Amino acid sequence: MQLSENVFIIGAGETKFGELWERSLREIAVEAGLKAIENAGIYSKDVQVLYGSNSLGGTINAQNDIGSLIADFSGIASNHIPAIRIEASTASGAAAVREAYLGIKSGEIDCAIVGAVEKMTDLYGNEMLDHLGTLLDREWEAFFGATPAALAALSARKYMHDFNVPKEKLMSISVNDHLNATMNPDAQYRNKLTMETAMGSTMVADPLNIMDCSPMSDGAAALVMCSESFMKKNKKEGIKIMSSAVSQDFLALHSRNSYYTMDSTVLAAKSALEKSGIKHKDVSFVELHNSFSIYGLTAIEDLGFAEKGKGKQVIDEGIGVNDSLPINPSGGLKAKGNPIGAVGVGQFVEAVTQLRGKAGQRQVKDAKFGMLHNIAGTGSTSYVHIVGGE
Amino acid sequence: MQLSENVFIIGAGETKFGELWERSLREIAVEAGLKAIENAGIYSKDVQVLYGSNSLGGTINAQNDIGSLIADFSGIASNHIPAIRIEASTASGAAAVREAYLGIKSGEIDCAIVGAVEKMTDLYGNEMLDHLGTLLDREWEAFFGATPAALAALSARKYMHDFNVPKEKLMSISVNDHLNATMNPDAQYRNKLTMETAMGSTMVADPLNIMDCSPMSDGAAALVMCSESFMKKNKKEGIKIMSSAVSQDFLALHSRNSYYTMDSTVLAAKSALEKSGIKHKDVSFVELHNSFSIYGLTAIEDLGFAEKGKGKQVIDEGIGVNDSLPINPSGGLKAKGNPIGAVGVGQFVEAVTQLRGKAGQRQVKDAKFGMLHNIAGTGSTSYVHIVGGE
Repeated sequence: MQLSENVFIIGAGETKFGELWERSLREIAVEAGLKAIENAGIYSKDVQVLYGSNSLGGTINAQNDIGSLIADFSGIASNHIPAIRIEASTASGAAAVREAYLGIKSGEIDCAIVGAVEKMTDLYGNEMLDHLGTLLDREWEAFFGATPAALAALSARKYMHDFNVPKEKLMSISVNDHLNATMNPDAQYRNKLTMETAMGSTMVADPLNIMDCSPMSDGAAALVMCSESFMKKNKKEGIKIMSSAVSQDFLALHSRNSYYTMDSTVLAAKSALEKSGIKHKDVSFVELHNSFSIYGLTAIEDLGFAEKGKGKQVIDEGIGVNDSLPINPSGGLKAKGNPIGAVGVGQFVEAVTQLRGKAGQRQVKDAKFGMLHNIAGTGSTSYVHIVGGE
Repeated sequence: MQLSENVFIIGAGETKFGELWERSLREIAVEAGLKAIENAGIYSKDVQVLYGSNSLGGTINAQNDIGSLIADFSGIASNHIPAIRIEASTASGAAAVREAYLGIKSGEIDCAIVGAVEKMTDLYGNEMLDHLGTLLDREWEAFFGATPAALAALSARKYMHDFNVPKEKLMSISVNDHLNATMNPDAQYRNKLTMETAMGSTMVADPLNIMDCSPMSDGAAALVMCSESFMKKNKKEGIKIMSSAVSQDFLALHSRNSYYTMDSTVLAAKSALEKSGIKHKDVSFVELHNSFSIYGLTAIEDLGFAEKGKGKQVIDEGIGVNDSLPINPSGGLKAKGNPIGAVGVGQFVEAVTQLRGKAGQRQVKDAKFGMLHNIAGTGSTSYVHIVGGE
């Protein structure tokens, strides 16, 4: 019988997100992993388990068993440490972090690496839509022609109607993302985006323009996580995972209570805040899951920063890195990029960078607590983590 | 800070394994889950997390996010309990059990359900081989034409040569599986198999006949697992998970130290026995991963029941349910069936049935401790669990 452990992140690393056509899935996964290990200042032999996060490797890259693949190609398989793959759709990254967190808390693991990777740009067009359809309810949504963008558009249309919210408020999330991404060297799109350009961009699924939609991305991100005793023994400084929470809803959008409230996010956020002991006003920045702009706006509400329909007030008060509630300082899913299985771990990489005060131009002043929000698909699962503190 | 918990299985259920063409993936997953919940005598609202195990859903069934799918279709999504999918190739089942085990030990979870499912028979032939290729090293094995059977055949040929072992010793594993399966109503193939028929069956990859190879199967299996405190509070009787161990090797067979020793199994078995405190002689039965007969024979050695090259002696001494070392009383992967992501959890269902003394004709007398062995692909990852005791 051992005492349940506090869990810390002592290393973080990621590749550039983008269209990395010249590099393979395994190659970028290993780059992120080695960066995290180097960043932690440990040896790969210190790692006791690898949690691989990946969502579409089987379908896009014809490669499953991604945990073993990363362990193999990085060389740590020779240490015989177990490697496993976590798949929870677009929330695979946060799901993998949570599994590592539970493993360390259980006392069975002292030090874990989470290696998250997605390689999406080797395919395009309709074929890609078919792959993304594997993340919806195949039989009740995808087979009837629904795509992620089409479902998000339904939510957006109803939200805009019910609360009389102009489309520009949704797009503000994308504009803010792009501004932040100009300051993030790992971001896929580092161009500033004006509201005018964004609103005039190609229509994807009315009312969503292409600038409301996160891109297809390649990318990898990794964390070294450990117990407090491991951290102290090895004289490392870590960022504490204050709390980890997850909640679930129906897979198909039509089964949910609401088209624009993700109950899974509401419940996970409530739980994460309660467990951490902090309040909304203590949150220094939020990395939220804006795979579509509408999800960014409703997340502000579902995470508890505004009542339903009033997220626009938070936006009006300012969501830039120097404003009252900095949102997606990394550039978010829209502009940093959205390599599906890696994006949740990329949020942690940003949080570690911010909390260490190493975020350069996009540094949130006096950053103390970060809230990280990663959802599966249209909100079937939501993970909320609070990181930071002493 | 909480005390690390002992972990028990209080409910187990499975579907029949076989060619279930008329039933969908979600349907069989839910059948197994509800059987496990009913078997545990709890309510679905008591479950706090669902660990879904599935390997090829994305590629065969065009459905990822299987955790959410099962939670949705079973109705437990309305309780907002988190659902996650574990993928570790053909070891996904044991991997999911281990994640649930760690989650409960961490003190964050009191009661978990593991729901494992695979639906393979909707596709056949070359297309299926391509799907199975996703479980190998795609770039270094599958793209060059290697299949799981071809790689197992390499191991078999070299093993037979180096230790002067006749092919019949390998096939004994299959013959034993079929005999046991005649006594298991959930088994896919309930026909007795003679050595003569087996040895004369169609050649798949010399020296492996089709009767050396586990079949394509549909099937689902589920467990309800909980902490000791949950079990006592709810006055349940459980089967204890004495130990959980996992070890890793390179993904590609050509990178390993040996063609017929799975180092990952050797290390996991050693660790599992050490943690459980029992010895080989205490093991009442073994459910081992004979996706191919050669892996069954070498597993006997790698699990520590014989020295390398001498597994045949164990077979000669008897591996039937009434013999000194009962192997695969369930019928094993060859005859009970091999629905990839479900097979490891199916082993636990058999263990629970045996340890409760409810296995009918195939009951192992005085069964006290079971050893369960589930590997990924050609041995990239091996899980060994010891269950039983008081």
